[in-house]
Parts: sequence; structure tokens; C-alpha cells
Amino acid sequence: MLSVLYLALILIGAGVLSLPISVTTPTTFSDALFTATSAVTVTGLSVVDTGTNFTLFGQAAILIMIQLGGLGLMTFAALVLSVLGLPIGLSHHTYLREDLSQTSLDRLVGLVKTILRVVLICELIGAALLLLVFVPEFGLIKGLWFSVFHSVSAFNNAGFSLMPDSLTHWATNPVVNLVIPGLLVIGGIGFSVISDMSQHRTWQRLSMHSKIMLSGTAILTIWSVAVFAILEWNNPGTLGAYPNIFDKLQISWFQGLTTRTAGFNTVDIGSIHDTTALMFVLLMVIGAGSTSTAGGIKVTTFIVLILATIAFFKRHNQLHAFGRSIGLEEVMKVLALTMISIFVIMLGIFLITISHDGDFLDLVFEVTSAFGTVGLSRGTTGELDTAGRIIIGVIMFIGRVGPLTLGFFLARRIPPRISYPASQVYLG
Amino acid sequence: MLSVLYLALILIGAGVLSLPISVTTPTTFSDALFTATSAVTVTGLSVVDTGTNFTLFGQAAILIMIQLGGLGLMTFAALVLSVLGLPIGLSHHTYLREDLSQTSLDRLVGLVKTILRVVLICELIGAALLLLVFVPEFGLIKGLWFSVFHSVSAFNNAGFSLMPDSLTHWATNPVVNLVIPGLLVIGGIGFSVISDMSQHRTWQRLSMHSKIMLSGTAILTIWSVAVFAILEWNNPGTLGAYPNIFDKLQISWFQGLTTRTAGFNTVDIGSIHDTTALMFVLLMVIGAGSTSTAGGIKVTTFIVLILATIAFFKRHNQLHAFGRSIGLEEVMKVLALTMISIFVIMLGIFLITISHDGDFLDLVFEVTSAFGTVGLSRGTTGELDTAGRIIIGVIMFIGRVGPLTLGFFLARRIPPRISYPASQVYLG
Ligand SMILES: [K+]
Ligand SMILES: [K+]
Repeated sequence: MLSVLYLALILIGAGVLSLPISVTTPTTFSDALFTATSAVTVTGLSVVDTGTNFTLFGQAAILIMIQLGGLGLMTFAALVLSVLGLPIGLSHHTYLREDLSQTSLDRLVGLVKTILRVVLICELIGAALLLLVFVPEFGLIKGLWFSVFHSVSAFNNAGFSLMPDSLTHWATNPVVNLVIPGLLVIGGIGFSVISDMSQHRTWQRLSMHSKIMLSGTAILTIWSVAVFAILEWNNPGTLGAYPNIFDKLQISWFQGLTTRTAGFNTVDIGSIHDTTALMFVLLMVIGAGSTSTAGGIKVTTFIVLILATIAFFKRHNQLHAFGRSIGLEEVMKVLALTMISIFVIMLGIFLITISHDGDFLDLVFEVTSAFGTVGLSRGTTGELDTAGRIIIGVIMFIGRVGPLTLGFFLARRIPPRISYPASQVYLG
Repeated sequence: MLSVLYLALILIGAGVLSLPISVTTPTTFSDALFTATSAVTVTGLSVVDTGTNFTLFGQAAILIMIQLGGLGLMTFAALVLSVLGLPIGLSHHTYLREDLSQTSLDRLVGLVKTILRVVLICELIGAALLLLVFVPEFGLIKGLWFSVFHSVSAFNNAGFSLMPDSLTHWATNPVVNLVIPGLLVIGGIGFSVISDMSQHRTWQRLSMHSKIMLSGTAILTIWSVAVFAILEWNNPGTLGAYPNIFDKLQISWFQGLTTRTAGFNTVDIGSIHDTTALMFVLLMVIGAGSTSTAGGIKVTTFIVLILATIAFFKRHNQLHAFGRSIGLEEVMKVLALTMISIFVIMLGIFLITISHDGDFLDLVFEVTSAFGTVGLSRGTTGELDTAGRIIIGVIMFIGRVGPLTLGFFLARRIPPRISYPASQVYLG
């Protein structure tokens, strides 16, 4: 149901982006549809340059799609109703639940309020700090718009930028390297974790989910930043171009954080080493947090997969983390989610290698980038034909609504094989 | 323990292949070691041409390594003891169990006898039939040796050939297209299935394992043959070179069957389409049967993964196939096996892309070929430096001893984190 609303938003967005008022040069409906899909699914893959192809009106439309897509349509609807003081019907709660994976109706209302507060505060602070960078460079009006656009895009992990080479121009700017990663980490950690942290301010009292999410994010960040730095240190196409060690570390920090789902870049992704690209593929498949703006299988899924594997080989009967046990039902869910994700990614690569003769790694990178709603590309996006755009568009959509939704959708369509024979019960 | 014996066999084999009597031209120890590893693990990747680089003595040594590696060292030792009428100690039974995943000691002795019978009969019939092809072409002596070598290599799914382009010369020979696939299917289905089939001759009475294995093999065969034919039909480097439709179908049939683990080829693997190569990667990871000469995660693992995923999305509490339920313990094992396999493959690709600047797909293909002990290559094997040979060698070894063995080995090495505090019990 939520998927249908996302679909409607994409179509409306594509219609708006097709209007002459939105574009500076004639744009095909295919371009507009792909851009709208990319914006609503907060992916950031683009077939045209956002900064030059669209007018201020078009860019604002994209930003609204990002915000609506990022928060989740129903969350947003409930937010508005809640702010206006209107009663929220049960049906809305049900949609919300679907979108945020929450179980308690009471907690939902609280969560929605937290979302609104966190989103507004973060995006405002982010934009205010980015003013320091963009106003001196572009003047007040353009600088203000750049600040708002990149703050919203970063918080929603959308990866859309108004520059054709993303944030490469500010690769060594300390403000950009602090504000953008700060925004995308908060947006990507998941609203349930933020809500949990705002209620229980000490580590001990956090839920197991929050603990796994926070420590998993920390481990993945250290790992990705370190490996990126090691592999790219002397690559003349990336870190090798910066003689200063602090600059190399800043760029590694930025790219290590942004790759899992945000999709900004400060180095040319087409120039990274094949090994780095492979690590990026893995990071993009993992993604960030549940109930966040991120795609991928999610950090918690990845951690539970690893814990379940270790527990099996250590012959433990029970799976536990941070003193709490993880049920077998959870493990089955994780297994199913991972399998259907691998299936979607493999099918996507399979279909796209049929229709495109590009470099295999670039195509794998493109498909996983779409699945993780990341938006990084090694140059394939611009070369996609209609078939390729449809494939990548569908994968972005699946990445946003979640592979679990796809799985349940497919399962519903398969009629049950066994139909029990009808039988009469004689009474009296 | 078994792993140590495999290792010893590889080292002895490398020593034998280093002897002047084994080679026609000076061969480095690195070449000999890689060849011995490839032979004992029945992979078939080769850095030198088996047919011209080794003397008849060297080729015979390779064939013995294939036979010992294929049957499993301990199975073979028990076989000899059993044939000689010597009592088989319990420790041997234990090794056997580890190698064949059987649980009943009684069934083991029966299984061992079945193995001996099946191996001898199959390899003799195979060699006899191949005489029809090789004797008219090479004369009696060379024809006889070619027949024996390729029969044993095929039955053990070793993929070693005495021709530099594998069996391409006989791509359209109906005898080769029947005998070689026949041998490798029987060798790859798993001895437990063969034993089950010889005891219970009707489908209904077969075990669930046999039913899953047989139907899974049938489905994978139909799928791989059909997709190969469709994707390669007009590729001038493969099927496109054969105008005859029956020839195209013969080659598709052969390649569809040989890719999962045998590793022979009748088309140039370097010329297949990227999409076909991706399908081959998946087939090589899946492999063939447990308790067989095959590598990979095994067909049954793959089927249980799919069944578990479908069951989750259909919200079934129980997992079942052919009227029998599959326990959660089995699902956990399958999950752990798949995860450690993905880990080994990813780590292998990661390490090999650091040390080699080759085409990414070719390197992925090489690593999965080693992991599935398949032996197909897109030309990377010959270009491997020492680091690359070590990586591929280790992966072949893991592929043969099984990723589960690796998992338990690693788990044993990790000291338990929680050590319960010592406590005294006061009695009386
Ligand atoms: K993104
Ligand atoms: K093989």
C-alpha cells in the first residue's frame, strides 16, 4: 500500500519535473521520471546534472521529493496531522507501523514528534553551518539555497548535489567534512535509535537494537575509513592527488561514511581501485539503519548474520548480543531478507549485463548503488538506455520500499499448493 | 585432521611432480605445488599444460592424486582395509564420518563398499566407451591412456585434460557429450544418493536428501543448459561458430552440466558473454552434491536456502520438502555455511584484486572457480604471480575440505569470551 503511494509520488514528481518551469533545457519524460524516482527513493543517481538542467523551481521540487521520500509518505502525513492537532485515525497508525517497523501505537505518536523535532533541528543547524562555506563562495542568495539543498539532501541521505562532481570541490573543507557526515549519520542511524537515545540517555538503558546499531555503525565506519585510506593512499586519481596527510584523512573519513547510503563523493568514484570498489559494493549492500532514510539490508541485519554464523560454529544453541537473546524468528527474517536481496541484486546485474556491454564491475557497482539507494556511480548512469533506466529505477524502488515488502508481495501472489479437502462436521 | 592429511598429500604430490622423471621441461616448485593442489582438490586450474609439460609418469601421478583427492583420503584408506579384510578401527570410522557426513557406523561400511563398486564400474565403463573416440584418433597406446585419464578425471569432477583447450576438439562428438557428462553427474551427485538409490529403487522410498538432490540437479541442469543456449546462441566466439542446431544443443548440454563442478569445457570460456559468466559464477558457487567429489555450497544447501526464504515470506512456521520437515538446526547450518562461503569468496576477490590489475569479472570467475573446485578459467590462472597462486591455492583447499570445516576450525581458535567464575561446592 505504501509502495503505491511512493509510486504515485514518483509519477507526480516526474510530471512536475517535465513542466517547462522546472527545466532550463528541453528534458525528456524519461529523464524526468528517472530523476523523480531517484529523488523519492533518496538514491541520487542522475542522468542529467541537477544544478544546471533544472531551474530553482525544479530543484525545489526535487528537494520536496527528497524530503517526502526520506521521511516516508505516511510518516509525513501523520506529522502534519499531529502538528495541526487533528486526530490520527487507526489506519494511519497502521501505515506508520509498516513504515517504521514499530509495534506499539503509543510509542508511534511519540516517535513521530521526535522525528519532526530532529529533522527540523538537524536540517536547520546543518544549513546554518553550511552558510559559512557557501555564502562566501556564491553570495547570499545562491549560498543560502546551496546550504538548504545540501543540508536536506545530506540529512535524508539523498546524495543529490547541485554540482556535477558532487562535493569534490570542497574535498578538503573541514566544515563540509564535519557537517555533511554529521547530518547523514544522524539521518541514517534510524529514528528508533534517536528516539531511544533521547529517552534513555545512558548506554546501559538503550535497547539491544540501538546498541547493535551504534556499535555496528562504529565498526563499519572505522573499517571503511581505514581500508579506503590504505587502498587509495597513493592512487593518483584519488588520495594521491592530495599531498597533505590531513587532507587524505579528511577525504577517507568523508568517503568511508558517505558510501553506505548517502552517496556524496569528494573523489572521482570512477578512479578508485577495483578493490576499493568491491568494498564499496559490500558497504552499499549493507546500508545503514532500519527506520532511517537508508537502503540496503541494514546494519542490524548484517550484524545478526555474522552473530548467527559465529554462534553456529561455536555450537551455541542461543544467539545473543549485549545480554539479550535474539530469537530464531529474527534469524529466519534476516536469512530471508538477505536471500531476497541477493536475488534482486543478482537478477539486476544479470539483466543489465544482457543489455549493456560496459565494464562488469561498473555495472555491479551501479546495481548495488541503486539497491542501497546510495547514488554513487562509476559513470554508468549517464550511459543507460531505456531498458537500463527501467532496471535501475525498479531496483531503486525496491531498495526504498524494502526487499521484505517485495518478498511478502511475491509470496502473496503464489497460491498455496496444498488445499485441504473440504469436510463436513456432523453435529447432534 | 583430514585437512592435514590432504595437505600432506599435496606436498608429497608436489615433490613427485618436481622430479625430473615427471616433467618434460624444467618446472618450478611453484608450478608443481599449484598443480598438485589443483589435482588433490580435484579443481583442474592449471598453470602449465598437463598434456605436454608432464611425462606419462607425471600424468599418472596427477591421476592418482585426483583419485585419492576425489574419493577422500580416509574413505580410500578404509576402502583398502575393507578390501583386504582387515578390521577397521573406530578412529577410521570417525574420520570417514567427517568426510562423508554420515551418522550411522553400520551404514558406513556398506557405503564404502558401494563407493568402491561404483567408482570402479563407472570409470571402467567410461574408459571403455571413450576408447571409441580416442583410439581411432591417437592409436592404441595413447588412445588407451587418454580414455583412462579423462574417464577418471571426469568421474572425480577434476576437470584435468591432456589437451590445452580441454575437450573443445570433441565439442560436437556425441560419445564425448554423453560419456563425460554421465560420469561427472554420477560422481557429483554424492555417494549417499547413489547408495540410497541402489537400496531403494523407487522414488517414493528415497530419502528426503536424495529427492532434494535429484530434483535440484534436474532443475539446475535444465536452467543452466537453457540459459547458456539462449545467451550464447549467436555469440561468434562460442555457439555462433557452429551452424548446426544439434551441435549448439550438444555444446549447451555439455557446458550446462560441467560448469557446476567438473570444469571441462568445449567452448572458449574467455569468449562467453559477461551475463553467461555471471550465471557460471552462481553455478560454481552452488556446486553439486554433498559426499561427492564436488565443491561449492552444494545443491541441497542452495535448495534449503530457497525453501527457507519462501517459507518465511509465506509465513509458514515449518520448513518441509517432499513431506518431511527440515529442522531449524539444518537451516542454521545452511545459513552459517552460506555466510562463511560468501566471506571466503569476498576475501579471495578482495585480496586478488589488490595484487592483480586484471579484468574484475575474470578475477571473480577465477576465485569462484577455485572455491567450487571447478577449474574453469577466463585466462587468469596462467597470469597469477606467487601471491595470486597462494590465494587461489588456499581457496581450492578450503573448497575441497569444505567451508564448514574452516568455520569450526576458526571457531575453535576463538577463546570463549565469558569464563564463568570458579566456585566451590560445600558438601556434607
Ligand atoms: K543516497
Ligand atoms: K573440477
